[in-house]
Amino acid sequence: MGIHNYFKSLSDLEGMNRCPGKFKYQEHSVASHSFKVTKIAQFLGTVEEHHGQELDWRILYEKALNHDYAELFTGDIKTPVKYAMPELKQLFSQVEEMMTRKFIEQEIPEEFQAIYERRFSEGKDETLEGKILAVADKIDLLYESFGEIQKGNPEPLFLEIYEEALSTILRYQEMHCVQYFLDNILPEMLEEGVIPYTQINKLSKHLLGKK
Amino acid sequence: MGIHNYFKSLSDLEGMNRCPGKFKYQEHSVASHSFKVTKIAQFLGTVEEHHGQELDWRILYEKALNHDYAELFTGDIKTPVKYAMPELKQLFSQVEEMMTRKFIEQEIPEEFQAIYERRFSEGKDETLEGKILAVADKIDLLYESFGEIQKGNPEPLFLEIYEEALSTILRYQEMHCVQYFLDNILPEMLEEGVIPYTQINKLSKHLLGKK
Amino acid sequence: MGIHNYFKSLSDLEGMNRCPGKFKYQEHSVASHSFKVTKIAQFLGTVEEHHGQELDWRILYEKALNHDYAELFTGDIKTPVKYAMPELKQLFSQVEEMMTRKFIEQEIPEEFQAIYERRFSEGKDETLEGKILAVADKIDLLYESFGEIQKGNPEPLFLEIYEEALSTILRYQEMHCVQYFLDNILPEMLEEGVIPYTQINKLSKHLLGKK
Amino acid sequence: MGIHNYFKSLSDLEGMNRCPGKFKYQEHSVASHSFKVTKIAQFLGTVEEHHGQELDWRILYEKALNHDYAELFTGDIKTPVKYAMPELKQLFSQVEEMMTRKFIEQEIPEEFQAIYERRFSEGKDETLEGKILAVADKIDLLYESFGEIQKGNPEPLFLEIYEEALSTILRYQEMHCVQYFLDNILPEMLEEGVIPYTQINKLSKHLLGKK
Amino acid sequence: MGIHNYFKSLSDLEGMNRCPGKFKYQEHSVASHSFKVTKIAQFLGTVEEHHGQELDWRILYEKALNHDYAELFTGDIKTPVKYAMPELKQLFSQVEEMMTRKFIEQEIPEEFQAIYERRFSEGKDETLEGKILAVADKIDLLYESFGEIQKGNPEPLFLEIYEEALSTILRYQEMHCVQYFLDNILPEMLEEGVIPYTQINKLSKHLLGKK
Amino acid sequence: MGIHNYFKSLSDLEGMNRCPGKFKYQEHSVASHSFKVTKIAQFLGTVEEHHGQELDWRILYEKALNHDYAELFTGDIKTPVKYAMPELKQLFSQVEEMMTRKFIEQEIPEEFQAIYERRFSEGKDETLEGKILAVADKIDLLYESFGEIQKGNPEPLFLEIYEEALSTILRYQEMHCVQYFLDNILPEMLEEGVIPYTQINKLSKHLLGKK
Repeated sequence: MGIHNYFKSLSDLEGMNRCPGKFKYQEHSVASHSFKVTKIAQFLGTVEEHHGQELDWRILYEKALNHDYAELFTGDIKTPVKYAMPELKQLFSQVEEMMTRKFIEQEIPEEFQAIYERRFSEGKDETLEGKILAVADKIDLLYESFGEIQKGNPEPLFLEIYEEALSTILRYQEMHCVQYFLDNILPEMLEEGVIPYTQINKLSKHLLGKK
Repeated sequence: MGIHNYFKSLSDLEGMNRCPGKFKYQEHSVASHSFKVTKIAQFLGTVEEHHGQELDWRILYEKALNHDYAELFTGDIKTPVKYAMPELKQLFSQVEEMMTRKFIEQEIPEEFQAIYERRFSEGKDETLEGKILAVADKIDLLYESFGEIQKGNPEPLFLEIYEEALSTILRYQEMHCVQYFLDNILPEMLEEGVIPYTQINKLSKHLLGKK
Repeated sequence: MGIHNYFKSLSDLEGMNRCPGKFKYQEHSVASHSFKVTKIAQFLGTVEEHHGQELDWRILYEKALNHDYAELFTGDIKTPVKYAMPELKQLFSQVEEMMTRKFIEQEIPEEFQAIYERRFSEGKDETLEGKILAVADKIDLLYESFGEIQKGNPEPLFLEIYEEALSTILRYQEMHCVQYFLDNILPEMLEEGVIPYTQINKLSKHLLGKK
Repeated sequence: MGIHNYFKSLSDLEGMNRCPGKFKYQEHSVASHSFKVTKIAQFLGTVEEHHGQELDWRILYEKALNHDYAELFTGDIKTPVKYAMPELKQLFSQVEEMMTRKFIEQEIPEEFQAIYERRFSEGKDETLEGKILAVADKIDLLYESFGEIQKGNPEPLFLEIYEEALSTILRYQEMHCVQYFLDNILPEMLEEGVIPYTQINKLSKHLLGKK
Repeated sequence: MGIHNYFKSLSDLEGMNRCPGKFKYQEHSVASHSFKVTKIAQFLGTVEEHHGQELDWRILYEKALNHDYAELFTGDIKTPVKYAMPELKQLFSQVEEMMTRKFIEQEIPEEFQAIYERRFSEGKDETLEGKILAVADKIDLLYESFGEIQKGNPEPLFLEIYEEALSTILRYQEMHCVQYFLDNILPEMLEEGVIPYTQINKLSKHLLGKK
Repeated sequence: MGIHNYFKSLSDLEGMNRCPGKFKYQEHSVASHSFKVTKIAQFLGTVEEHHGQELDWRILYEKALNHDYAELFTGDIKTPVKYAMPELKQLFSQVEEMMTRKFIEQEIPEEFQAIYERRFSEGKDETLEGKILAVADKIDLLYESFGEIQKGNPEPLFLEIYEEALSTILRYQEMHCVQYFLDNILPEMLEEGVIPYTQINKLSKHLLGKK
């Protein structure tokens, strides 16, 4: 049995950076991303429940926590590749499933295999939990790209990523949690200023004036 | 309202390394640790359920995911300090609670404050979920220290940490998941060999012999 | 005896970063900070001596060099925590003293224990040397925060740190070295421009024009 | 025209690490790998020429220098994935070609497109230069994996990589340069010792004895 | 024989960063630099050939690939030092030659020594290939400094480096490839904008408006 | 005046790593090294004083703190280069002095120039303080190399560095502090064991046995 191997593999997710290649001021690992997506999904689920939606928390947490685990097997394929050819995307998903199943058969004890098959399956779907995962995944991507742009990254790709993320989030705007995000959270992000270099001067003069 | 600030703060956990100071071959952030602890707790809960235990998955995931969030406020106090004086440990917990409450009042919308007070409260307790968290936390610590020792870290502290982690896990050995860990997972960890330097020679000679 | 352990511990200070958590373009270790504070204190002491002050250089260097050594024992407690409760700050100092004393008893040979008790004791006090240390500590903090802001770090905390550092320095403005700093050094910092992106264009056109 | 974009893209190869995920003591970027493969191919070509083989140096250098450039477009797909399904491997190559062609059309001036189509095409083939590239690529992989094992990396994958690399090299053993490698270079690699910890003791006693 | 040592030494070039000391958002190793200079020289040579120039590709690639190898022996001497005294520059070159020769005698097999003496000799000279190397070296330096300035590095040195690099390139402006660079590539670099922080706001409003 | 520039330059020493090129598990910056050398010199001076030697602490601290500052100007020239030719070493020292003097004239206020000329001058000489600096410098180098060997660095150079460092220290063995080092500190270093991989097994079995 390989639960030991499974536990060990979790550290590998710490060594896999998202979006490799382009210069970033701050790298984010797949492990950190999974953590943040789960925390974000936790909040989105809280909003949905607050609005009377019935949420299966167990399913939600499972989907969020495990949604990128398979990157351990497949590596990080750039999105344009997956979408270049429909047949490629389909074959790639098949391979991803095959390798996930092989991993489960090799490492997961028989009595837990069914549960882990569900846990490692594709989490984004039309259920409430699946949609919350899709939104949470894009919200983290939005913060990642916003972070780079705000820090001054001149690479245009991050603006494209920001745009794609926000557009996808908007496709779910009939959801309570997305409405909440658009009404309360996004405006705060957009209101963030920078610290103009001149602010140091102002602040210093003010403090020196008080002496 | 500061859910935006809350979402932003999640990245800060990526920049906080555990056990700072001692040389490590591989650093682990608080974010990665929280992710791994939640995945481990997921498995331990699966074992418990398999043995007929009734588990509140929502509570379990909440405890695991949020258990180190407060380190954002307090910083990383070395364990020997907290235990040097009972009064210090107590006062420190009070301050940690105060600062967490202040954060919740400042950033969490009123309608969600009760939920987040529960989420940010101390997760380790006598409930099944609380005990699973305590065990999962130590299992990750066991893997962290084992990883350093196996890679050749000469620092004796890691053996002490390994010992303390395993001892704590053993205190919960009446639990099904801990029994499972001791019977199936720990032996595999202990059976891990190293790759002796001579193995390269053997392998090469074998391959060259086949030519 | 553990002077060997003491020498080894110096490297640990290289692995402890200041202000962990918040994204920084440039991290600074406790070792680097201690080095810079000592060099800054060296200059401040030079100014004081130049103005006829009697300075005990041995004491000054000892205070500066050792002022953060105890962070090895206690970890990095965030400032707001220490000040959240007077009793906590006091207890924390007691624990810090206890652990320092324990270290000295364990590692420092008996014949040197008294000297090292002095060296590891709190350096900031009302003596000239103690005040120079307090100022030098804040000047380095000023440069750290200024560095982040100038590089474009959007995190408001660095402006708060800059403000707190400058305010503290101003509390010592009756000192010659602080006057010197305010009259000669700070203005140069505030006069630093950025390299506007347009400057590349101008420079290039100028060079191309000369061809 | 986008030669400027092409020049910019070269830096991206510095930010892409090989074999992401598994813990490594030393990471190697695609840029560094391309550099080393070209230097190794330079030597292998020298040996071939020395044995009277006719070598097209221009072709050899082009193949080596550009052989991994397309990873910029496709990302790093793990080898097991590409080989999981023949159709996937084929489709993947098609997509890789498509994206490379698109890049050439977008960024390379028309008058140079033919040349760059050749430069970015698959370099490994049955020509002498193509075989040298295949060997050089594996020799660098051999050194990468050997380096990790020698430094004490407990991850079994590196021994598998070492084995696969050496086996592939052996398939080309009819080549002069591979014979040279097996007779002169590999033995030196296998003769490398480690520095046993006891060697410090011996050396120190020897030096102290001389005092 | 030490071709094994030679292959091993290539990794050392990955651990040597250019221009050490000054804060950089993005470090570049000597290995990466050599890779990029060779790719750039490849393009410049293509332009020259396109204009009917006769180019020895073997010589060009050798010069570019090996031009900084000797930094392994000498370390990274800052340019102002080398030019501080003519005698120093001359003596330094002599030592560099001596150490390179010693390396060749120690590690390179006799039958290849002549070839490697040529490969490790100074590549910049009055030949077409030597001039292409000189230009390619400065183009990479231009991109390195431009990258830092564009990312917001406040250090004035990078503007000086940018200026020196562009001035040197301009000294070769009679070359076709330099004309091409000035007419087609440099303008694109200078046209690069930054992503103004306000662009996020505009983009978001636009997307939100479409909902 | 440029004390501001002087203060800024201190951070540059944080970005300069010692012995660049060779793979190291743990890098050490010039800033950290200066810090540790000063702390070590502090202890060595304590021993000397304990034995009745008269020590000028001010001079000792100045020598230690500033001894590598000039590397900012010259870069890191590898030792074999400096010793390859006596004339080179001499010229190099001249250039180093010239550049240091130029820096002092440009940045240090007139009233402090004499003091800083002394501070930046060569610290190692026949005085007690100068000899303590020479020993402290080598002790830190000993710990740096010992650290790499103990962690398993297979690079033979570190054993050579260890040997050279210890040999140099032994040349000063008539000093009380060196006697102390050889009698009390070095033995402890040599007695350090490694944590044999089997020790985990033993420890675990022991803990499990107690259950």
